[in-house]
Amino acid sequence: MEVLRVPEHRAEGWYLSLMAPNTKGPKFAWLDPSRLYCNPQALSDCVKDLLRPFQTDSIDLVAGIDAMGFILGSAVATTLGKGFLAIRKAGHLCVETQTQDYSDYSGREKLMEVRVDVLKPGLRVLIVDQWIETGGTMKAAIKLVERQEGSVVGVAAVAIENSEGGKWIKENYKYSHCIPEEIQPQIDSQYLESFKNFSSSTQ
Amino acid sequence: MEVLRVPEHRAEGWYLSLMAPNTKGPKFAWLDPSRLYCNPQALSDCVKDLLRPFQTDSIDLVAGIDAMGFILGSAVATTLGKGFLAIRKAGHLCVETQTQDYSDYSGREKLMEVRVDVLKPGLRVLIVDQWIETGGTMKAAIKLVERQEGSVVGVAAVAIENSEGGKWIKENYKYSHCIPEEIQPQIDSQYLESFKNFSSSTQ
Repeated sequence: MEVLRVPEHRAEGWYLSLMAPNTKGPKFAWLDPSRLYCNPQALSDCVKDLLRPFQTDSIDLVAGIDAMGFILGSAVATTLGKGFLAIRKAGHLCVETQTQDYSDYSGREKLMEVRVDVLKPGLRVLIVDQWIETGGTMKAAIKLVERQEGSVVGVAAVAIENSEGGKWIKENYKYSHCIPEEIQPQIDSQYLESFKNFSSSTQ
Repeated sequence: MEVLRVPEHRAEGWYLSLMAPNTKGPKFAWLDPSRLYCNPQALSDCVKDLLRPFQTDSIDLVAGIDAMGFILGSAVATTLGKGFLAIRKAGHLCVETQTQDYSDYSGREKLMEVRVDVLKPGLRVLIVDQWIETGGTMKAAIKLVERQEGSVVGVAAVAIENSEGGKWIKENYKYSHCIPEEIQPQIDSQYLESFKNFSSSTQ
């Protein structure tokens, strides 16, 4: 779909058709969701969809995960009129931090950090990332917030795959994502060449 | 300043006092601006200050630079109701890109990339980053936008240091930053132990 196009009738998840399929081979993700952020209506609808389940929840702070979770997280925070906390890949923050190790989507062992001068016991935090694949990154972010006794109100991402970690998150936390139910199986079979079906089913 | 505090009288740049000084030694930046994003009033006032010089400009798209420029850029895009384009460190995007080499603030040679399916001749782009130190990163982002014939409406960052590159940007592009004139010398003498003065002069 042309990047700035907005269909007359905006069906559930219409903006997912703006995502770009991988053209660079197997070492890259199968989809690039960030193309949808370029379309203002898509970005706004995506944020609204992510916030819908949390309309009656009190949220004190939005946390976003380095790096693509910063975009969606900051858009969510700005829409809510709340502050934004960056959960960073370790080694960047010049202030005291707590760190948490995790395996990212590619299986590599990494370290994530969060500053210690913002979270407080009971502070209600919504954690945002772009895409939850194995769930390892999000689980580390949850641990970082909870170790400082922040209360995780929920977890939001464009998609939450039904991986072991994705299912664990769905079972243990309130969550939101943008994937209509009938498309979820395609999200969960990402390694199949499913983008063509996926694209046509959301247009 | 306590992270969620909002002073009764919000003087120009009041929120700069929320920035945290480096406690980890010389290989880190002297300040961490991201603490101010945690305070919703600070984030909102910072975005307003960045947009003030562009009130009469037509902006089609906001571009933000990987990674911290994503936070402020997405907040600016959401506030304007515009889309957001990620200018990324090379090697992450699964779609066709153009790349540009640059030296970052630490002098390291790096590569930055932008997708080729969003920018168009004449599209008016505001480029946002967190902090402009040597200006190398921002110059590369400007080149990437202009190589696809996007029109750079301006450049916005919490601070633009009066380095050679920072001055070049100020001389060649419309710009905005959040640093009151009387504090700019402290920004430009960042390697002096100036944070104490800096902090007290913005409280």
